[in-house]
Amino acid sequence: MFKFDEAKFLANEKKAIEFIPKVEKIVDEVCEKGYSNIFFVGIGGTITYEWQVESIIKSMSTLDLYVENAAEFLTVGNKKFTKDSIVVIQSASGDTKEVVQAVDYAHEVGAKVIGFVEKEGSPLAKSVDYLILEEAGGTWYFWYTLAGRFMKNHGDFADYDKFMAELKTMPELLVDVKKKADAPADAYAKKHRDDAIQYLVGSGNLWGEAYCYAMCIMEEMQWMRTKSISGADFFHGTLEVIGRDDSVILFKGEDAARKLMDRVENFVNTICANVTVFDTADYELKGISKEFRGMMSPIVMANVTERISKYLEEYGKHPLAIRRYYRRLDY
Amino acid sequence: MFKFDEAKFLANEKKAIEFIPKVEKIVDEVCEKGYSNIFFVGIGGTITYEWQVESIIKSMSTLDLYVENAAEFLTVGNKKFTKDSIVVIQSASGDTKEVVQAVDYAHEVGAKVIGFVEKEGSPLAKSVDYLILEEAGGTWYFWYTLAGRFMKNHGDFADYDKFMAELKTMPELLVDVKKKADAPADAYAKKHRDDAIQYLVGSGNLWGEAYCYAMCIMEEMQWMRTKSISGADFFHGTLEVIGRDDSVILFKGEDAARKLMDRVENFVNTICANVTVFDTADYELKGISKEFRGMMSPIVMANVTERISKYLEEYGKHPLAIRRYYRRLDY
Repeated sequence: MFKFDEAKFLANEKKAIEFIPKVEKIVDEVCEKGYSNIFFVGIGGTITYEWQVESIIKSMSTLDLYVENAAEFLTVGNKKFTKDSIVVIQSASGDTKEVVQAVDYAHEVGAKVIGFVEKEGSPLAKSVDYLILEEAGGTWYFWYTLAGRFMKNHGDFADYDKFMAELKTMPELLVDVKKKADAPADAYAKKHRDDAIQYLVGSGNLWGEAYCYAMCIMEEMQWMRTKSISGADFFHGTLEVIGRDDSVILFKGEDAARKLMDRVENFVNTICANVTVFDTADYELKGISKEFRGMMSPIVMANVTERISKYLEEYGKHPLAIRRYYRRLDY
Repeated sequence: MFKFDEAKFLANEKKAIEFIPKVEKIVDEVCEKGYSNIFFVGIGGTITYEWQVESIIKSMSTLDLYVENAAEFLTVGNKKFTKDSIVVIQSASGDTKEVVQAVDYAHEVGAKVIGFVEKEGSPLAKSVDYLILEEAGGTWYFWYTLAGRFMKNHGDFADYDKFMAELKTMPELLVDVKKKADAPADAYAKKHRDDAIQYLVGSGNLWGEAYCYAMCIMEEMQWMRTKSISGADFFHGTLEVIGRDDSVILFKGEDAARKLMDRVENFVNTICANVTVFDTADYELKGISKEFRGMMSPIVMANVTERISKYLEEYGKHPLAIRRYYRRLDY
């Protein structure tokens, strides 16, 4: 498959599976010591993962969870935040400046921080109180374990062990996802790479993916014009601007918000001739129980969109790593 | 001034001032009876007002507040919602379908609903438990009073009476705001009405305004392409797509998030030659205390952007009331 090293992918996924017990131990320790509430703090891509996990948590649990953009957290603040709060952050670079500052602020207040960091020796790898360090990545395994374990310990997720056993089978299943997504990803990118604008629509635990893919990949890494909109708000403004030739992309998942995407899909095909649907239901995920498919939608869709990115950079002749401003000009 | 009936505007604002004691009485009654938490439920424009109020509340108060998109609330749900929750909704039409359903759902659960409705005899005017009905509008007076009173009763807003006294002087001050905003609004619209895309940036209690103005006015009422982005996330993706000739609009307020907008302004002017700044600090607001100016930013900016809309429809020869799909095609 184009730009895909299956052996390397599987090896990295397996490394992620290996850190799962460590995440469980951290959460158990935090729960034993006690905490008043949980703050997921992120910015850019990381806050969008946190939104996806938040969507899962709020549908299943009464955990006291707040999701804060690091820069807003540092300025506007949140009066619910105290020394008894527990902060969770994630960073690939380990030095995202607003997150570094947010961790420092949390420490000033007296709160503890759990961090998934992908760069050894980085400022965040050094400053968090409970560190999961894995340079090979594994974002979703971190977040699913963390959220699931907090919910289990809170009495809201009786099927935790069953879910985790199935989660650990995802590496091989995701190879199948990538292979099946490859042709539609190629077709989409080939047809729409240079369209005037892309409208990305997602709902429930995939709203974060729609927002993230628009901002972090298309805008940041491909310099494509985008608008991301939730399937709920789509009908309260954005629908009016869409014409026959606009590129509209729907990220359909299998959580309870799927019906919001169904109605977008039904409607938008009546006014637009350029709708592309990426649907987690198209992937078999052998062995994953029906009741967990909705929770798995974020990790499945992330692997679908990864295939899109490979073809956008190819047809755009624009490597994903190019930046003209970020980390080149100061802000 | 172009398309502005000052006498009518003032008369409507005064009607809004008159319903303030009724809002206070409703909140006092709810607080006396007791509630477990507060749910602001909205969709489209209304949820963006709620986000702006949420930003103010979380910076000042530990009130247990959740803001839910009505359609997501009805599908994904929120486990924190119980019969002891109090719901707050707003609707101009009184029949926004997702909000009608959300109120029905709240009643099934056993929760009470406070509603600001602008249409007599409408489904929502009939179904909410505590009704503020005002066909002349007055959105911000409703939200400020409601939020302020809940915070006061919770012990988080000692200066409530002072704030409300100043809020009641806003009608005349907003006339001055509109007059001063008129020329810059005209200039912006004349120059940028037909640009390929508009980037709208806001932070803190004006993030909702940036999102709303992009979606509810530019997309819905003017069929203009937009992307709204928070000043925090701006540096984590969207900055890369912006070129010299793109139209970028900054909504600057005076809350603690202002510094996030300062850094966007400083940066974006180095890479873009088409930046327009609308700044609440440009307006005198005589008699408004320094400590309340930040809270007032949403109502001030709403009156600034109202002037922009008048010129967009004029230069675009596209009346704001035209819809091609909404309430014409089913969804």
